[in-house]
Amino acid sequence: MRGRFITLEGSEGSGKSTNLAYVRQRLEEAGIDVEVTREPGGTPLGESIRDLLLDHRNSDMGTDTELLLIFAARAQHLHERILPALDTGHWVLCDRFTDATYAYQGAGRGVPDERIATLESFVQAGLQPDLTLYLDVPVEVGLARAGARSEPDRFEREAVAFFERVREGYRRRASAYPERIRVIDASGPLESVQRVIGVVLDEYLAGHAA
Amino acid sequence: MRGRFITLEGSEGSGKSTNLAYVRQRLEEAGIDVEVTREPGGTPLGESIRDLLLDHRNSDMGTDTELLLIFAARAQHLHERILPALDTGHWVLCDRFTDATYAYQGAGRGVPDERIATLESFVQAGLQPDLTLYLDVPVEVGLARAGARSEPDRFEREAVAFFERVREGYRRRASAYPERIRVIDASGPLESVQRVIGVVLDEYLAGHAA
Repeated sequence: MRGRFITLEGSEGSGKSTNLAYVRQRLEEAGIDVEVTREPGGTPLGESIRDLLLDHRNSDMGTDTELLLIFAARAQHLHERILPALDTGHWVLCDRFTDATYAYQGAGRGVPDERIATLESFVQAGLQPDLTLYLDVPVEVGLARAGARSEPDRFEREAVAFFERVREGYRRRASAYPERIRVIDASGPLESVQRVIGVVLDEYLAGHAA
Repeated sequence: MRGRFITLEGSEGSGKSTNLAYVRQRLEEAGIDVEVTREPGGTPLGESIRDLLLDHRNSDMGTDTELLLIFAARAQHLHERILPALDTGHWVLCDRFTDATYAYQGAGRGVPDERIATLESFVQAGLQPDLTLYLDVPVEVGLARAGARSEPDRFEREAVAFFERVREGYRRRASAYPERIRVIDASGPLESVQRVIGVVLDEYLAGHAA
């Protein structure tokens, strides 16, 4: 049986890494064989592309260039890792996918949705995640949490207004695809966030027996 | 006045490098301010992408990935270098452009022309070279000339049949765009090839005063 494709979305400081580990643990406890990966990246070539995308020396990168690099990494990720895993019955848990492109490049940088959709359909040929958990936090909360980290990368150097647009972009996606994208309030303490994630996963597993 | 965009095309061993220098010299002698560049590459970021494309360790690169990386480098090249040069009245002389994508990825690897056209229109928004010189040589002649070089890169490792398809692809492009693409028989001695190039350039310059 074909595996399920689950993605985790959220902006800076939403607790994505910690909760990714939690989702993995919950799936494994349910007896599911899960492959964890991330975007941009997920393959050796994709990680090289990620390095180009995050390198703050590439400050003159055009928006078309950025978008094409993201989808190049995604094409390789699908080809080399995601599709083979799903085809052999593994579930794939991915830290960010195309919703992030609509949020960051679309809402954040102002790339029209139709341009993103052109590349999405070019690369994904209709493939969509089966379930997306979107960790939602107010921008100030997220940036304060993320600020504890070291040297900011090319995305983290953006202004607060940019992250407000990104959040708005994510919320619009969630409204447009309510069946697939579950909005999880990630502003509270970790235990309560994970309680909600647990409920969402249990519901999903009950409806989609592994 | 806007500059002109001239591209030089040809497969392995067609004498592209030598003749690129010759075209540059002829344009400069005609008093034209010419910027010489190449694809994939032409910008620092584009050259990093070129390295990924040519690295023979990336042997598992998907055809979609390859195509998206080529157009990512091209988008950056247009954004950072080609369009600003043309806009300020410089001519641009480019070693390979989108005809090469139709020849190598299209005819060579079997990517449908429509898929290339999707990305071409995404990135170029209608921009085409004003003049393309295609250096045509039989595959055996080209490979024998190129064989003198060192370690083959990822493209040079392809079989002869691949290069036959590439040549066929180039010739089909030339038939489809006879006004723009001039086929130059590059199998003979350098002096006679350059005599033909000189005639084509003189004709073009006579019709498009610098």
